[in-house]
Amino acid sequence: MSLKLHNFFRSSTSTRLRTALNLKGLDYEYVPYVLRDGETRTVQYLAKNPQGLVPTLETSDGAFLTQSLAIIEWLDEKHPEPALLPADPDERARVRALSYMIASEIHPLNNLRVLFQLRDQFGADEAAQKEWFTHWVATTFDPFETALNTSDQTGKYCHGDTPTMADICLHAQVWNNKRFDIPTEQWPTIARIQSELDQVPAFAKAVPSKQPDAA
Amino acid sequence: MSLKLHNFFRSSTSTRLRTALNLKGLDYEYVPYVLRDGETRTVQYLAKNPQGLVPTLETSDGAFLTQSLAIIEWLDEKHPEPALLPADPDERARVRALSYMIASEIHPLNNLRVLFQLRDQFGADEAAQKEWFTHWVATTFDPFETALNTSDQTGKYCHGDTPTMADICLHAQVWNNKRFDIPTEQWPTIARIQSELDQVPAFAKAVPSKQPDAA
Repeated sequence: MSLKLHNFFRSSTSTRLRTALNLKGLDYEYVPYVLRDGETRTVQYLAKNPQGLVPTLETSDGAFLTQSLAIIEWLDEKHPEPALLPADPDERARVRALSYMIASEIHPLNNLRVLFQLRDQFGADEAAQKEWFTHWVATTFDPFETALNTSDQTGKYCHGDTPTMADICLHAQVWNNKRFDIPTEQWPTIARIQSELDQVPAFAKAVPSKQPDAA
Repeated sequence: MSLKLHNFFRSSTSTRLRTALNLKGLDYEYVPYVLRDGETRTVQYLAKNPQGLVPTLETSDGAFLTQSLAIIEWLDEKHPEPALLPADPDERARVRALSYMIASEIHPLNNLRVLFQLRDQFGADEAAQKEWFTHWVATTFDPFETALNTSDQTGKYCHGDTPTMADICLHAQVWNNKRFDIPTEQWPTIARIQSELDQVPAFAKAVPSKQPDAA
């Protein structure tokens, strides 16, 4: 199977997908895009991904899959081992809820195009962007920490002792937080799990600084 | 099975869940919360949902499920008929991607707490909030329209001829757009599907104006 990952080293949604592909042991061709140069706004790229966003996964039969969590679910259905979601519906609901807390409540508010819109519409400078970014991380990391430290389903990782989609989202977000130097230690369970994840090769290899297009 | 839906009539994530429960033919107890009065920030509610957000689905065995799309996937796993996702992995990926375009790229940017943050941090008045809201709807509805009108998988609804999770997200978002009087006609395929959905009782019964706590 020949997979192509259209992505950008610093994009946290791209990081999620690199981690998932690594966990599944799937090889892929790394196709980098420079967002600032508009490389995802070309007619060619928009035909692959009408939103002009990364990542896009090009499959061996030439299909283009978009939206990182939709692609992770697809990978989990096409390549069930190792599973990125538990088998039990109640447990799946917990892992998905943790994943969406990050994917729907932090990342969409803090990505580059939103920071640009704040700058363009409200004149937000770097300090105001940092305040905004930090606000939304804390707004969700506080209850995320509570969800972890009040559940006996939390294990070595967010859910049990094997990495799940929730860990994939968390790890990429903590990496993304480095952009504005947000210390993780204020959330002790998150910090503990992050250091566990840093030791898993599939996660360690996926981080932005290890990618071919890293500055 | 006795289900309780902790929700708010105007919340579009609550609307999604009401629609899903209606489609599945599941009865539920409607438990309303007044967001402006802080009813989702009480100690009692935070024990159910650490984020202090609606909706929360309380199951018959006393579990509290959070995050609307995680709950919809759970409903689809526990009550498979009628299916809200197709059976084929490639088709599931398309339906999830369409769902996440709305759930991760529009709604998180435009909900009440974000508009309040814009007001508090940047002094955004009603007009500036409308500009912001409209910007993010158009940013994603434009490629959403393209994804629909360039695919032969689009049918009577977003994917084929039976309602899926993507329709649930779309219908609630178009309803949410009424807050700032955004006309749907500029996206003809979206407008066509929305009028189809309006005729499906499970969707029609779920809209904000039909709920017991509607003003």
